[in-house]
Amino acid sequence: MGFETLSFRDGALVLLDQRELPGRTVYLRLRSAQEVAEAIRAMVVRGAPAIGCAAAYGLALAAGDAARAPGSPEAERVFAEAVSLLRASRPTAVNLGWALARLGRLREVLLARGEGPEAIAAQLLDEAHAVAREDLAACQAIGRSGSLLVPDGLGILTHCNAGALATAGYGTALGVVRAAVAAGKRCAVYACETRPWLQGARLTAWELLQDGIPVTLLPDGAAASLLASGRIGCVVVGADRIARNGDVANKVGTRGVALAANDAGVPFLVAAPWSTVDLAAASGADIPIEQRAAEEVTHFASARVAAEGAAAWNPAFDITPARLVSGIVTERGIARPPLAAGLQRLAGATPP
Amino acid sequence: MGFETLSFRDGALVLLDQRELPGRTVYLRLRSAQEVAEAIRAMVVRGAPAIGCAAAYGLALAAGDAARAPGSPEAERVFAEAVSLLRASRPTAVNLGWALARLGRLREVLLARGEGPEAIAAQLLDEAHAVAREDLAACQAIGRSGSLLVPDGLGILTHCNAGALATAGYGTALGVVRAAVAAGKRCAVYACETRPWLQGARLTAWELLQDGIPVTLLPDGAAASLLASGRIGCVVVGADRIARNGDVANKVGTRGVALAANDAGVPFLVAAPWSTVDLAAASGADIPIEQRAAEEVTHFASARVAAEGAAAWNPAFDITPARLVSGIVTERGIARPPLAAGLQRLAGATPP
Repeated sequence: MGFETLSFRDGALVLLDQRELPGRTVYLRLRSAQEVAEAIRAMVVRGAPAIGCAAAYGLALAAGDAARAPGSPEAERVFAEAVSLLRASRPTAVNLGWALARLGRLREVLLARGEGPEAIAAQLLDEAHAVAREDLAACQAIGRSGSLLVPDGLGILTHCNAGALATAGYGTALGVVRAAVAAGKRCAVYACETRPWLQGARLTAWELLQDGIPVTLLPDGAAASLLASGRIGCVVVGADRIARNGDVANKVGTRGVALAANDAGVPFLVAAPWSTVDLAAASGADIPIEQRAAEEVTHFASARVAAEGAAAWNPAFDITPARLVSGIVTERGIARPPLAAGLQRLAGATPP
Repeated sequence: MGFETLSFRDGALVLLDQRELPGRTVYLRLRSAQEVAEAIRAMVVRGAPAIGCAAAYGLALAAGDAARAPGSPEAERVFAEAVSLLRASRPTAVNLGWALARLGRLREVLLARGEGPEAIAAQLLDEAHAVAREDLAACQAIGRSGSLLVPDGLGILTHCNAGALATAGYGTALGVVRAAVAAGKRCAVYACETRPWLQGARLTAWELLQDGIPVTLLPDGAAASLLASGRIGCVVVGADRIARNGDVANKVGTRGVALAANDAGVPFLVAAPWSTVDLAAASGADIPIEQRAAEEVTHFASARVAAEGAAAWNPAFDITPARLVSGIVTERGIARPPLAAGLQRLAGATPP
């Protein structure tokens, strides 16, 4: 691939600025947890797994700042503030909290062992690298097993961007697409443009075309008729959080695509690393849904397009109920309906 | 209302140029059927009933040109060419063919009676005025009876623009909204922005705000979660063509809204004048669906937004199957499921 969604170089988290794609390829260098939190909030980086990786690096940067702080109380304050800033940066993706908890627990262990601040900072950076490495490996495993579910000779429809740009690389839903194409399956790729942020038109199309995979965009409203047309063999999307009953929070519009897929008898697959599963959430009702600014809907590139005075309802995510999901593809295996039991079985499985 | 979608003044059809809204209010004066056909194709005017009215005026202009033609064969050629240009301007809205057939039949009668070309042109213009007058009256009747179906105290969701801008005035779906508001019902109006042409954001919001009716826009993909939220008491949309089994062709995205409404147990209403019902179409499969240019999806205000090289699937309309429709509100009354029987009953009813 000709781009890196995130990497860590010379003491900085380097993020590909996704706000500028597909027009410009700009990399930002971030040197503090504050900068990372702001980048997540502003959607320089987005996609639940990529947010998890970025947050891990952000906390590793905070551990470095804590090591340079004058005294232990100040170091604790620096670290705690970083945790709380990063946690508040976006509410829906559970991978963010999962990554923060993972590095936070490691730090507790190291502190209890009496490790010094520099050693702790170094080990937290190693752990952030592990989070990213494992995410990439999970995507590749998801791609391998998910690709077996893709019918040959029919289209595959995705929504938003669950690709290399949403993960440490390769992608979840687009990992399935990449693996199916690599396996020689003939599957025309269709992508919803995904208003208001146009992740489909700007990001999914861009990264697939970088890999030489042709893609056909459609307005989100056209998904139902595309699915009814018989052209599509399966839908595959990512997830921002999966409750333990199998309800899936994902980019707004996913619920509508799932309804249309079910109505048309087309399998609806969710591809996500295990870090996206939130066993503490009983159902979708327990998942906070972020509301974003009205201007994302009423304006385009800073110019007003909607009539002056119109309000906007702009939730970033929606909940697809478990009853509409044909399978959840994770690196631990595939949960099939009934999803609650399937996820419980995977929860007890040994990670690969 | 502070605007006129269409009017006829000093020998010209005057159209509000809907491509320029909401930013600018520009009126175009069209003096020939050719100019009217091009305006319909380019969406200066859109909305099935408004297209029908514009086509009627276009044919009246052609009758004037025919009256000035040297000799009867040339007059026939001028008129026939106008019919064929207007008929080809957009394929899905049946009102267009309906209006052309209505004026064409009148001309046959007048020719058989031996009327002269100037008298025929004058009577065709009168008939075009009648088409527009009847459309306005139909919208008002639709509004009155449809408003009785709107629950008080809940939101009302619409898609695209089936308003004064889509008709000779008042609107079909927005006629229902206007009448419900006028009757004192407290119903917050939600409008899908309606990609790719943004009829909801640009036109529906604009015309409702002109009438002092507040409106909240949403990305098309957010309709399913809005409907699932319990905020919405009914959906009301217009139609471009209704088959005799009750299948409804309307702006792309309508099918998805109907699926989400049905899933949420929210009534899904279609409001349309009887001229939109095509008894010659047995089902939605008989309705031609217009494909429009890929640039509507890949570009915004002439600037590329999608990744370079991405294709686009851009059908202007979709088919909502009769099984998803709770009622079709026309000026002849309301067809209820089973819709085929309901429409058959209305077909035999005396027009108001």
